[in-house]
Amino acid sequence: MTRVGVIGATGYAGAELVRILAGHSEVELTVLTSRNYAGEKFEAIYPALAGVVDLTCEEYNIDRLCDRADVIFTALPHKLPMAIVPELIQRGKRVVDLSADFRFQDPLTYEAHYEPHTAKELLSGAVYGLSEVYFEDIKSATLIGNPGCYPTSVLLPLIPPLKKGLLDHRTIIADSKSGVSGAGRSPSLTTLFCEVTESFKAYKVAEHRHNPEMEEVLSREAGQEVNITFIPHLIPMSRGMLTTIYATPAGKIGPEEIRQCFDDCYEKRPFVRLRQDTKPPDTLHVRGTNFCDIGFKLDERNNRLVLMAAIDNLVKGAAGQAVQNMNIMLGLDETVGLLNTPYPI
Amino acid sequence: MTRVGVIGATGYAGAELVRILAGHSEVELTVLTSRNYAGEKFEAIYPALAGVVDLTCEEYNIDRLCDRADVIFTALPHKLPMAIVPELIQRGKRVVDLSADFRFQDPLTYEAHYEPHTAKELLSGAVYGLSEVYFEDIKSATLIGNPGCYPTSVLLPLIPPLKKGLLDHRTIIADSKSGVSGAGRSPSLTTLFCEVTESFKAYKVAEHRHNPEMEEVLSREAGQEVNITFIPHLIPMSRGMLTTIYATPAGKIGPEEIRQCFDDCYEKRPFVRLRQDTKPPDTLHVRGTNFCDIGFKLDERNNRLVLMAAIDNLVKGAAGQAVQNMNIMLGLDETVGLLNTPYPI
Amino acid sequence: MTRVGVIGATGYAGAELVRILAGHSEVELTVLTSRNYAGEKFEAIYPALAGVVDLTCEEYNIDRLCDRADVIFTALPHKLPMAIVPELIQRGKRVVDLSADFRFQDPLTYEAHYEPHTAKELLSGAVYGLSEVYFEDIKSATLIGNPGCYPTSVLLPLIPPLKKGLLDHRTIIADSKSGVSGAGRSPSLTTLFCEVTESFKAYKVAEHRHNPEMEEVLSREAGQEVNITFIPHLIPMSRGMLTTIYATPAGKIGPEEIRQCFDDCYEKRPFVRLRQDTKPPDTLHVRGTNFCDIGFKLDERNNRLVLMAAIDNLVKGAAGQAVQNMNIMLGLDETVGLLNTPYPI
Amino acid sequence: MTRVGVIGATGYAGAELVRILAGHSEVELTVLTSRNYAGEKFEAIYPALAGVVDLTCEEYNIDRLCDRADVIFTALPHKLPMAIVPELIQRGKRVVDLSADFRFQDPLTYEAHYEPHTAKELLSGAVYGLSEVYFEDIKSATLIGNPGCYPTSVLLPLIPPLKKGLLDHRTIIADSKSGVSGAGRSPSLTTLFCEVTESFKAYKVAEHRHNPEMEEVLSREAGQEVNITFIPHLIPMSRGMLTTIYATPAGKIGPEEIRQCFDDCYEKRPFVRLRQDTKPPDTLHVRGTNFCDIGFKLDERNNRLVLMAAIDNLVKGAAGQAVQNMNIMLGLDETVGLLNTPYPI
Repeated sequence: MTRVGVIGATGYAGAELVRILAGHSEVELTVLTSRNYAGEKFEAIYPALAGVVDLTCEEYNIDRLCDRADVIFTALPHKLPMAIVPELIQRGKRVVDLSADFRFQDPLTYEAHYEPHTAKELLSGAVYGLSEVYFEDIKSATLIGNPGCYPTSVLLPLIPPLKKGLLDHRTIIADSKSGVSGAGRSPSLTTLFCEVTESFKAYKVAEHRHNPEMEEVLSREAGQEVNITFIPHLIPMSRGMLTTIYATPAGKIGPEEIRQCFDDCYEKRPFVRLRQDTKPPDTLHVRGTNFCDIGFKLDERNNRLVLMAAIDNLVKGAAGQAVQNMNIMLGLDETVGLLNTPYPI
Repeated sequence: MTRVGVIGATGYAGAELVRILAGHSEVELTVLTSRNYAGEKFEAIYPALAGVVDLTCEEYNIDRLCDRADVIFTALPHKLPMAIVPELIQRGKRVVDLSADFRFQDPLTYEAHYEPHTAKELLSGAVYGLSEVYFEDIKSATLIGNPGCYPTSVLLPLIPPLKKGLLDHRTIIADSKSGVSGAGRSPSLTTLFCEVTESFKAYKVAEHRHNPEMEEVLSREAGQEVNITFIPHLIPMSRGMLTTIYATPAGKIGPEEIRQCFDDCYEKRPFVRLRQDTKPPDTLHVRGTNFCDIGFKLDERNNRLVLMAAIDNLVKGAAGQAVQNMNIMLGLDETVGLLNTPYPI
Repeated sequence: MTRVGVIGATGYAGAELVRILAGHSEVELTVLTSRNYAGEKFEAIYPALAGVVDLTCEEYNIDRLCDRADVIFTALPHKLPMAIVPELIQRGKRVVDLSADFRFQDPLTYEAHYEPHTAKELLSGAVYGLSEVYFEDIKSATLIGNPGCYPTSVLLPLIPPLKKGLLDHRTIIADSKSGVSGAGRSPSLTTLFCEVTESFKAYKVAEHRHNPEMEEVLSREAGQEVNITFIPHLIPMSRGMLTTIYATPAGKIGPEEIRQCFDDCYEKRPFVRLRQDTKPPDTLHVRGTNFCDIGFKLDERNNRLVLMAAIDNLVKGAAGQAVQNMNIMLGLDETVGLLNTPYPI
Repeated sequence: MTRVGVIGATGYAGAELVRILAGHSEVELTVLTSRNYAGEKFEAIYPALAGVVDLTCEEYNIDRLCDRADVIFTALPHKLPMAIVPELIQRGKRVVDLSADFRFQDPLTYEAHYEPHTAKELLSGAVYGLSEVYFEDIKSATLIGNPGCYPTSVLLPLIPPLKKGLLDHRTIIADSKSGVSGAGRSPSLTTLFCEVTESFKAYKVAEHRHNPEMEEVLSREAGQEVNITFIPHLIPMSRGMLTTIYATPAGKIGPEEIRQCFDDCYEKRPFVRLRQDTKPPDTLHVRGTNFCDIGFKLDERNNRLVLMAAIDNLVKGAAGQAVQNMNIMLGLDETVGLLNTPYPI
């Protein structure tokens, strides 16, 4: 059985990895590291998992890690993975990195929005882990740059019609809304309960670092440079992300054509659910799951296509997709460990 | 002292009118009507107001109403006001109607989206109560069609640059998000706590009846037909509305020009606050107030202007603006009764 | 494989049964009935389960039901089960009823707080489905009266010390707090989002119908009449229940004695977690799970024992415990279908 | 016009003081100090107050403060006020301190639960600012120790029946529930949105420092030593506190006697509302107000009295009561500045 370690197991994405991997029938979770909680039982930090996960957090030590794990998830703030991933790869480990460090093919784009990159040599070999789109590449990958939550919610609904040439690529606007867990577990004024409840607002307006990430992928898929306007907003809720996309069709299209376009891409993909009726996707319906629910509407009066996608930012937007990618890398069914029945409410 | 009655006082907008009018120094609240609660003390329905509002709800009776009130607020579902407002006007009362019945100049537009109109003769004389824009007309009005909450949040940020010709009017998209109180107080599955919390979704996608309302006003102000794409969303919170608007500038513009455009329109308007820094408007900052906070950002990479506006849907989006309109009609300072200090959180 | 039907599958408890049973490896979910949604796909009502549960709701018809199901869950308002359960039992089905109809041994108590009882003959044979306490009786039961949510959260922490004689039975107070889902899915003013958010209040103060249910069980276990003061409160959240119990020790006791008392009862019970540290139980830690987390504190200054228990009202407080009881009846491991890994947040 | 300064103006209680004092017709708010935000406009920290409060935060400097303010509110963490209040008093200022530093008559009690006290000489002259109970003493006070939020919600319902001898003082239990704003504005893991939402739990079980504060006051009022069991809980909401109190009557009493007892104490007190019906108090009904809503129920079966009180922890539980105390000290009507009409929802 494949042994798995999580580096940075006590942040929200790390803990979500622990949840999924603890219930995964084909791998064994063997190592959890945490800078802040080394020496503490995981269940002392997340009492929900008392009696379920019986592991103790430890300091990161590459030798001890590599002795006990074959696949490594790095759930750390960006910049930190660059420092440790190269050696993990060198030692023959497979790595899924949840930070931005290995998402970009072009190091200049990364450096323009993040930091000087110190492991550039790995970028060309790293695979962008948008599971449904890069499935084939992921199979043989040793290093996955797991997508950001916003990019996942923008790219899954946008790539099919864009790639098929149905959209005027100069007209794309993505208005995204995210639950608070996306901001992580570090105490901060902006994520205090009293600052968030009854608050709804945009932030990093047209300046968010997920914007270049989306554009690199969209440009690659469209075969030409694509720039989009992207505005994230914060929702007073814990988990969930909804993206509403606006674009002008490249020519005359009808709903059947759009539906067909999605079916062509996703009909056999278990985690994309194209709504079969006119109800728009709802974050409540994907909460705690790896699903991406997609809906659309043609605003014919204004000749605009409206795409909507709902995900759980911690699952399909982070830990769930990471495990899906591991499954694909290991030749397992991509759904293993990810089919917990969704809660009705 | 002017005597005021509220028809439909126990819905959320009606109760908010009661709140504001109870603290208004220049008018006296004399009559509350309610179909469901006639005979009951208002404070039995809204115990928050125990000891503050000492009025009993009564059946609607035009004679008793007209004997005791000079200005009437009708806070009823659309269609009902059409049936009673004509006689109120005939008896010399001034009326602020919070429904859609008197918002449209063109009865055909109203009828296409609502009902057959049975008081068409009043439409041409009714004034659309967007206080900051139709201030002069409101002064002499006898009948106000008080704007919808979504239109208020869309029109206030959009009219200044549109009117000044700064925007390509074919490119306008309004992505709005509303708290749940906008759906009213009638029990309904869709507004139950358990259906709303952790839920975020669009609804009535490109089909909402506030869309033609916005377009009639925008077309009038722009001097040409303006159509926009409008998508409302539901936020898991009680009060508050945020609208994010996307539009392509008509030519080269910079932030100073936009700021100047807003200052020209609103610098002396006490309830519009143009943010002086780069922080986007936040519903929490206008909660319980009649303010409309406006912010903007030029996405120069994509040549798009992003406008953002935050209001409390029950105050500036309904009852507050209604009282502001009454103040203007009565020749009072428009702020009377509306200057309760905002809560910091 | 045992075939299972759910009567009343579209209420919150019914839908939670569907969730759990859909993921249960040892039974097959075959029949869902719904008065309001007969003919509709279950996933149209609960889109979260799209692609996961492929069943259509149907009208209740005893023949069609009994042909296709061996175990029946009735998740209906009280009074309705009395009318259908007798025939189900007669036809040899095993029934778990989630209403109050079969919880009482004494029909007079039931009738004093509910309705005239029309199936009294079944009461003596029905087993009260508090799984950890009546495990042995449940094994051979054909009819289970599944406990109310409040009684579950009160009885599990209270029975061990009460039964062992550690408590003065005249001093017991249970102060319970419940999330809104306990009130069900029928639209009602009191469960609207805007009425609940930022609201916390008691209701049915010392008058709730779960009070006699608790007392019948406590009296049976204590071997003498036990009356308690029980006050429920409503929390502005969806799922979760916390009960704080106050009682005076019968004599001198220390924390070790209490811990031992709980260990004696629950050490081998997989769904009761006695907190091993001083952190009080938290509803967030049991959300979506069948766990009951128990904590305690001796207030030695006042010679009082404080017991605290957290459950998910829809799982251990309803559907989860119902499935646990079915497992026990069928001779399965009691945890089958109930071991989804808890969410860290 | 009396000039007023707020020391520690940017915490939640400080900001709430600013809100109330900004709308107070009889005093002028002249000085705001803040350690973290000196030099910044208050509205930059609390944008809700943009255009309403035009003051800049400054460093604490006693000379500059005393030149410009006659009454000082200290809204600082305990220990800090001890260091500055003595000199303020010496310079003839009137001080309302919102910390615990001047709430205790007995310095040993304070020191047992807080810190060594460095201004003990002021304790005997300080008045405990429970406005309704110590009204007469407050009139002539120069230093007010403003009550804690929990004590306010416990003492107001408990003092009247306790003082009148209606209760067995050995049987009192207070089960309190508080919104998150009571924990303040300093970033902390425990008050993050994702840790709080869907979470309900007790904390500091029978160990909270407000417990001795309550007991000192209760003992003084009862004329004998009174100890109570006090358990605080955290509610997933922003503002609001509900306390449920349990006590055994000292003899035979009926509801009229209890009602009379409350009327005797509070009939003329504008901020205590005894519910006139059987609806229990609700935090939503006092949100943003200085009201304390009180209800009660006799559990005759168990011979227990249940008292319930709802306040807004930031208003009657902190800033509102502080301003009420200032009003009383200054000989103003106690309601000035505190009569903003409550929101219906």
